Amino acid sequence: MKQMKLLLHVSDNERWSVALTTAINFLKDVGEDEADVVIVANGTAAASYAYSDKIETMEVLADKGVQFRACRNSLKKLCAEGTVCINEEALPSFVKIVPAGISEIVSKQREGYAYVKP
Amino acid sequence: MKQMKLLLHVSDNERWSVALTTAINFLKDVGEDEADVVIVANGTAAASYAYSDKIETMEVLADKGVQFRACRNSLKKLCAEGTVCINEEALPSFVKIVPAGISEIVSKQREGYAYVKP
Amino acid sequence: MKQMKLLLHVSDNERWSVALTTAINFLKDVGEDEADVVIVANGTAAASYAYSDKIETMEVLADKGVQFRACRNSLKKLCAEGTVCINEEALPSFVKIVPAGISEIVSKQREGYAYVKP
Repeated sequence: MKQMKLLLHVSDNERWSVALTTAINFLKDVGEDEADVVIVANGTAAASYAYSDKIETMEVLADKGVQFRACRNSLKKLCAEGTVCINEEALPSFVKIVPAGISEIVSKQREGYAYVKP
Repeated sequence: MKQMKLLLHVSDNERWSVALTTAINFLKDVGEDEADVVIVANGTAAASYAYSDKIETMEVLADKGVQFRACRNSLKKLCAEGTVCINEEALPSFVKIVPAGISEIVSKQREGYAYVKP
Repeated sequence: MKQMKLLLHVSDNERWSVALTTAINFLKDVGEDEADVVIVANGTAAASYAYSDKIETMEVLADKGVQFRACRNSLKKLCAEGTVCINEEALPSFVKIVPAGISEIVSKQREGYAYVKP
């Protein structure tokens, strides 16, 4: 079982770049066989999956086992307030939608993931 | 005993809105019987208890068991630097003042609360 | 063994002031004999060790046992992108350089340090 468990919490679209660099550095430093990385995006960062210029980098990381999550509450709120409406079907296939990002974040910490806010 | 323990750290007045939405979503998602939420406010967020337009929302959450903390060190600093002087007696009754918010944050994590910076 | 273990993550040069105040408050509140504090700086905060006007405050804290870390990945990135090039030899002697700040942050949490993003 992978021992180095990292949970990255991205809540702002502008922090994606730092978050992805952090994941890349972590994989490189501890080794892909040891690194277990989950990235939970809520707030404006949840919508980034639909239009970010970082999708290719995310995809490479997903292929290396990094897990990507999007918060449905956030997507609904962004649509309700008129910011942007994202069709969940339009998100990349490597993204898993969770009902509430915050519950995922708490659950993962209970499973031993170290929380980091990039 | 409630199993899903969440510690929200709010250090900036402008993050209160996100923090409260996060607490609401968490209660809704895991259920009020399972959710144990503590919110520790320091920095400018500690003073928000005295004048924020979010007091009513906080009060509703307090009635559902969410615990609110204010850092005395922060209140003193805000007064000393001339930003705002808050009389502790003037804070809402649902707010508990702690001598040092940072110690409360560390203690709660030791008790098993998952740290989240909204 | 010290029981109150605190890990401060500073990723932005502008957050150093808050981070150091947090460390000072923590030492004062729980007592220097009980407090075990590690500060990991990455991003622009890693370069601050070379030119910040807070060095003296850091030094006082280092003398009280606070451990300071700088992320080498961040220093390399800041140099590569033309922001600032820091010679590691020029950093204060109380700063320990780690290959990847993110791995240090995960390791420390595994050792029981409570993560806080000031």
